[in-house]
Amino acid sequence: MSKSSYGNRGMFLENIINDSNTYYNSIDKCLIFKKPTPIKVLNVTYPTDKSHLIDKAVYSSISTLDYNGIYREKYIEFDAKECHNKTSFPLSNIKDHQLEHIKKVILQKGIVFIIIFINNEFYLLKGDTIIDFIKNNDRKSIEYEYIKNNGYKINESYTPRLKYLDAVDMAYF
Amino acid sequence: MSKSSYGNRGMFLENIINDSNTYYNSIDKCLIFKKPTPIKVLNVTYPTDKSHLIDKAVYSSISTLDYNGIYREKYIEFDAKECHNKTSFPLSNIKDHQLEHIKKVILQKGIVFIIIFINNEFYLLKGDTIIDFIKNNDRKSIEYEYIKNNGYKINESYTPRLKYLDAVDMAYF
Repeated sequence: MSKSSYGNRGMFLENIINDSNTYYNSIDKCLIFKKPTPIKVLNVTYPTDKSHLIDKAVYSSISTLDYNGIYREKYIEFDAKECHNKTSFPLSNIKDHQLEHIKKVILQKGIVFIIIFINNEFYLLKGDTIIDFIKNNDRKSIEYEYIKNNGYKINESYTPRLKYLDAVDMAYF
Repeated sequence: MSKSSYGNRGMFLENIINDSNTYYNSIDKCLIFKKPTPIKVLNVTYPTDKSHLIDKAVYSSISTLDYNGIYREKYIEFDAKECHNKTSFPLSNIKDHQLEHIKKVILQKGIVFIIIFINNEFYLLKGDTIIDFIKNNDRKSIEYEYIKNNGYKINESYTPRLKYLDAVDMAYF
């Protein structure tokens, strides 16, 4: 696949993961869903007795990660981040409350990681690895080489589009 | 607590469970959250460069259960239903796609149940119990006595307001 084929996609990573989950869930390999985007509703009107319309609302922030569920009897939770910088992944992509949440999932012995799309490649980076990196480095970003050496490469396929559970198997089982 | 103290509360059960989760999560006993209510956004405007306003949206249905997370290293998922009928719990409270989802969680060996508030009492009814009941009965509701005999009573306290993890311990560990 050519490098230019992944330019400026926005929802690209989210879509490819949602498609992969739809496939994985359909064959009962796991049960993993994206959580709904939290929205703070400020006003609702009722045009008719049986209908409603939210006419004032704003997006609010989520304190957990975007995807969770069960795989091989284990609790699993992760987030997906597209990185448009080719040389490093800025840690500002992971919010402080998300980092706290990652620590809490580790404490509960759940599987927790980030899928990073960088340089037209997909990597699974374990929560532990991220926490360790931050503890031992003053850098505000994780170099691509570090991700390559410490992450688990995720392969693409036709179904699922992203074989990320293979990387989970390598990383955790 | 007097029977009349629980009249017509609407969000009562949701609030008491959210409070209990806040407490349980704070002492690292588990990590369980209510999923955000799914909302289908139909239009967003941008009053200023840095602000947004959703001015057209509707609630959409969720195919999973409302709460999920990890407890004692196990995946856990449940829903909460207030029942205003004192003699039985109408099965119409559990939507078909929720029932399918319950079966899928059982297949993945996760913990899955419904918390039912009936007759001013709280019960945990295991997913298996509900599936079995439906398989073996033509009734469109589960009698209170059946819930009392086959469910696990959940006690109230000051913190957490609902000691539902004690019932989970009894039912699953």
